[in-house]
Amino acid sequence: MQILTGRQIYKHFKEYSGKELSLCGWVKSNRDSRDFGFLVINDGTFFEPIQIVYEKKLTNFNQIKKLSVGTAVIVKGVLAETPDARQPFEIQASSIEVEGESPSDYPLQKKRHSFEYLRTIAHLRPRANIFQAVYRVRSLIAYAIHKFFMERDFIYVHTPIISGQDCEGAGEMFQVTTLDLKELSEGKKLDYREDFFEKETNLTVSGQLNGEAFAQAFRNIYTFGPTFRAEESNTTRHAAEFWMIEPEMAFADLEDNMLLAESMIKYIIHYVLEQAPEEMKFFHQFVDKGLLDRLHHVAESEFARITYTEAVEILKQHNDKFQYPVSWGTDLQTEHERYLTEKVYKKPVFVTDYPKEIKAFYMKQNPDGKTVAAVDLLVPGIGEIIGGSQREDDLEKLQKRMEELQMNLSDYDFYMDLRKYGSTRHSGFGLGFERMVMYVTGMANIRDVIPFPRTVGKCEY
Amino acid sequence: MQILTGRQIYKHFKEYSGKELSLCGWVKSNRDSRDFGFLVINDGTFFEPIQIVYEKKLTNFNQIKKLSVGTAVIVKGVLAETPDARQPFEIQASSIEVEGESPSDYPLQKKRHSFEYLRTIAHLRPRANIFQAVYRVRSLIAYAIHKFFMERDFIYVHTPIISGQDCEGAGEMFQVTTLDLKELSEGKKLDYREDFFEKETNLTVSGQLNGEAFAQAFRNIYTFGPTFRAEESNTTRHAAEFWMIEPEMAFADLEDNMLLAESMIKYIIHYVLEQAPEEMKFFHQFVDKGLLDRLHHVAESEFARITYTEAVEILKQHNDKFQYPVSWGTDLQTEHERYLTEKVYKKPVFVTDYPKEIKAFYMKQNPDGKTVAAVDLLVPGIGEIIGGSQREDDLEKLQKRMEELQMNLSDYDFYMDLRKYGSTRHSGFGLGFERMVMYVTGMANIRDVIPFPRTVGKCEY
Repeated sequence: MQILTGRQIYKHFKEYSGKELSLCGWVKSNRDSRDFGFLVINDGTFFEPIQIVYEKKLTNFNQIKKLSVGTAVIVKGVLAETPDARQPFEIQASSIEVEGESPSDYPLQKKRHSFEYLRTIAHLRPRANIFQAVYRVRSLIAYAIHKFFMERDFIYVHTPIISGQDCEGAGEMFQVTTLDLKELSEGKKLDYREDFFEKETNLTVSGQLNGEAFAQAFRNIYTFGPTFRAEESNTTRHAAEFWMIEPEMAFADLEDNMLLAESMIKYIIHYVLEQAPEEMKFFHQFVDKGLLDRLHHVAESEFARITYTEAVEILKQHNDKFQYPVSWGTDLQTEHERYLTEKVYKKPVFVTDYPKEIKAFYMKQNPDGKTVAAVDLLVPGIGEIIGGSQREDDLEKLQKRMEELQMNLSDYDFYMDLRKYGSTRHSGFGLGFERMVMYVTGMANIRDVIPFPRTVGKCEY
Repeated sequence: MQILTGRQIYKHFKEYSGKELSLCGWVKSNRDSRDFGFLVINDGTFFEPIQIVYEKKLTNFNQIKKLSVGTAVIVKGVLAETPDARQPFEIQASSIEVEGESPSDYPLQKKRHSFEYLRTIAHLRPRANIFQAVYRVRSLIAYAIHKFFMERDFIYVHTPIISGQDCEGAGEMFQVTTLDLKELSEGKKLDYREDFFEKETNLTVSGQLNGEAFAQAFRNIYTFGPTFRAEESNTTRHAAEFWMIEPEMAFADLEDNMLLAESMIKYIIHYVLEQAPEEMKFFHQFVDKGLLDRLHHVAESEFARITYTEAVEILKQHNDKFQYPVSWGTDLQTEHERYLTEKVYKKPVFVTDYPKEIKAFYMKQNPDGKTVAAVDLLVPGIGEIIGGSQREDDLEKLQKRMEELQMNLSDYDFYMDLRKYGSTRHSGFGLGFERMVMYVTGMANIRDVIPFPRTVGKCEY
């Protein structure tokens, strides 16, 4: 007999009513009295567990009575609807087979554990309710993103993880090497011709430049892959390894970029609300009280739009409220971003046209000579969630800017070629995947939305 | 006016018939006579290009006449059906705007280029017909895989890229470090406490062990991420960076594993044949003459099953045909695998129960004491495309095998825990993504199915 999943049983319990079926899972709790007992199990495919009723007639009744939390079992039984109970049905067991026992030192006993403790058992924490919800929603968001872009005929591009690009100004990078560090430290000469790629290489910080090459061939593309920063910041929002989504569109300006970002955010929220109502209710109740209201509001708002210069004018009037006062030319801090989106607009805001000095070399220079066609999307509760721009498509202007910044032009030959041969206005943005997961779940620490997080000093499992 | 995609126009050309629309793209060819001309353009969203008819009445007629291959244009015009022509419609231009010119040294002139040459312009080759087809199919296969697993309620898990696991026997690995190699070579002492993670770390070779932890919580999971091998093999089938899909199922044995692998392969093939008929026809005509017949045959066959021991018995009878003769205990070579699937069975074959000495430590030991519950899937034209196994779920047996292999058990504490707490029979396999892309497209060199390939001595772009 096929072993059904918990999700299959929940979705179709009316059809299974009165019928015998097989299911499996891990024991969440076990209550017994003299002649019968209740085993609550979950196989991880559905947020709600399933209650198994077992009676003395089972040949292994005495074994089952003693089963402890975490034990894996396979159950045969008849589904009975229980319209008056909290659960819509239960299973009356005809057999319960023990698949794998769980000794009493099982670290996930039925009680509340701190996030700090659960981080020390990252291989077991996915079995805890809250992480069942987090990782299922993480998986659904990933799929929503693919689905969104595929429905719009974007091409998914795997940009390289190991990079030979010089990537100035991208912050600290991890080096990738096959050279023997022990030998080096013992006096061997450093010669990159002996390294695997015969040059210095590092882990990518962004797939954008490669993505642009593909947008100039397929018009609409996106990347979705891991990126890396070797920053020593030990905060709740920094991880050394995280995933990023970077769409890029040829024949598209900043306006098209904002339309795409707004539709994508709304699409993801709708998809998760629809596909994981049980998990979202749980987050709303136990993790972040305002969550569902905030998400519904965002999904239904028309996002506001404002230039950086206008934003600075508004914020300057409230400089007494900020740790860092605002003036034209300084970058916006999270406190400013949140003030704009939470107090001023009470909904998501696109801020555009930032001073060129605080933005990357590749952003399109505006006619005013001072600003570039950048756009950040700020959302309530978090601040910046997306950063993007229209790209400089004029070869001369791009070269001039790179020279001003004393960049090594010869490292960017391929990138220049994209402006030389059939250049187009084009735009794109980056969405930090983990930031989106935190936003949708209300989880406050990036370590708790990544399966096995990598942060400074931590690379376990 | 919204600029439609080539795909939108092709899919709905009957609705657009006689109407004015906007489109864009890069010039593929330009033929003019005195009073009119034909511009063929493609925006990369659909395999077939679109023909634009332009006449002398255009104010920039003389400019348009001279446009060269690779130029980016935006066109307004009326769609006219052309039922007698090769293309079902053409656009009669009312305006053609030049978005970005392409000088005459554009490297992709309208002629046949060798793959070797195109590899030297990896940033421009996606504009060539064949790479339009390769990368679109690559993108579709990625999506088909996500769709397949999501429809079956699998959880997508991002296993770590940077690994601290010791991973013995996995072959050459890339080291990841923030230590300064120059300083080391100049006499600085090697001290991993100063490295970012305060220990030696490397790029992952497989997400399986981490994936198993998630299968023991969610029952059915899969990974889809980059993996790395620092092997110096300079062959048509080895890349240093490639993507891998690794499903893992709790409460599942080798039989369930084979059922999943067979459905997945068939699902991918059906999806691509349905979504990219133009591209697949092109591969069949110009890349691999038998391609479509082979894929249709695979999609409709019931895969054969045979044990390693039976396979050796069959192959031994043909040892005169092989470079490496077969005997029980040796690993099967590609020549043997292809013989089995192409000559003996003429369809895909699962080979199971290999000698434990030639397989990994984590595979489930069979009662015979000699073999393990491994399974490889062999397909015509390529040999092994999937490798998997049921995993050893018995803590004692696993420990004993690891001790035999002199592995450092303390590195695998978390992996042992999965056998200690609620262990289940469980199974999974790995599919090399690029190998699947090669199989579906008929492309013979892995360098030509990866956007920016990384191979020994090569890390460009």
